[in-house]
Amino acid sequence: MTLALEALGRTLRTEMPVTQHLGIEPAGYRGGVLTLKAPLAANVNHKGTAFGGSLNAIATLACWSVLWLALRERGLAGEAVIQDSTIHYLRPVADDFTARAGPPDPEGFERLIAAVRRRGRGRIALSAEVLDANGVAVNFTGRYVVHTPSPPTG
Amino acid sequence: MTLALEALGRTLRTEMPVTQHLGIEPAGYRGGVLTLKAPLAANVNHKGTAFGGSLNAIATLACWSVLWLALRERGLAGEAVIQDSTIHYLRPVADDFTARAGPPDPEGFERLIAAVRRRGRGRIALSAEVLDANGVAVNFTGRYVVHTPSPPTG
Repeated sequence: MTLALEALGRTLRTEMPVTQHLGIEPAGYRGGVLTLKAPLAANVNHKGTAFGGSLNAIATLACWSVLWLALRERGLAGEAVIQDSTIHYLRPVADDFTARAGPPDPEGFERLIAAVRRRGRGRIALSAEVLDANGVAVNFTGRYVVHTPSPPTG
Repeated sequence: MTLALEALGRTLRTEMPVTQHLGIEPAGYRGGVLTLKAPLAANVNHKGTAFGGSLNAIATLACWSVLWLALRERGLAGEAVIQDSTIHYLRPVADDFTARAGPPDPEGFERLIAAVRRRGRGRIALSAEVLDANGVAVNFTGRYVVHTPSPPTG
């Protein structure tokens, strides 16, 4: 596992306890594509398949994580929060699952970097898929707001 | 707490372990309006506010739950699954939070009941809000598919 992925894993574990409750952890980062994984057992619903809220959570985190990694690669300590998202559940997920988020669109990412540097704040759209052994089961898109950390007070 | 709300609480606890991980439980059901509650602590993110995925999970469950209750009030043992949803995060949630889902739109609910009775399957749109001490922080809409349980096999 790369150093960047280890750092991401530590951040998720220590700063987002939800990821431990849901068993969500980094699984790979290659060519700008980030993969998270989660077990079905902790996320099962009344039908014995994955709860929609868990599928949304891993997709939300996959986009957040790929942005976290991309910002750090550019030396920017920006913090991202999600603003809105839309998710389509294409079919039930009956196994352990992964979420995959590609690198940010280069043009949108450059606009984001410029806006954060100029105004301390910018916005970007990202997308992710959730997959099980049979392929893509969920499509997700979200918009994230990035801002530079506030200076310490007091 | 009403009998219906107790039955819902049992279903969430036993059939959706995620609700226990996230501390989500029923808080009230009055005039067709269902409220779920959750503590910030189990759902905190890197900013010390509620993780977007947890806010989505409680909203997804609030709509699912109000539909579960409404179907049972009509004597229909239909099972609902979410098909798609859109969520807007209006501001950070820095406290314990609740999700509130109103009763299904009467006309849409009658269409759903008729479709489920006729074809064993129907669809309905529902909406929910997530609130903290300062009011509404999240708007959520989702479409749910309801079908009659499959007959036991074998």
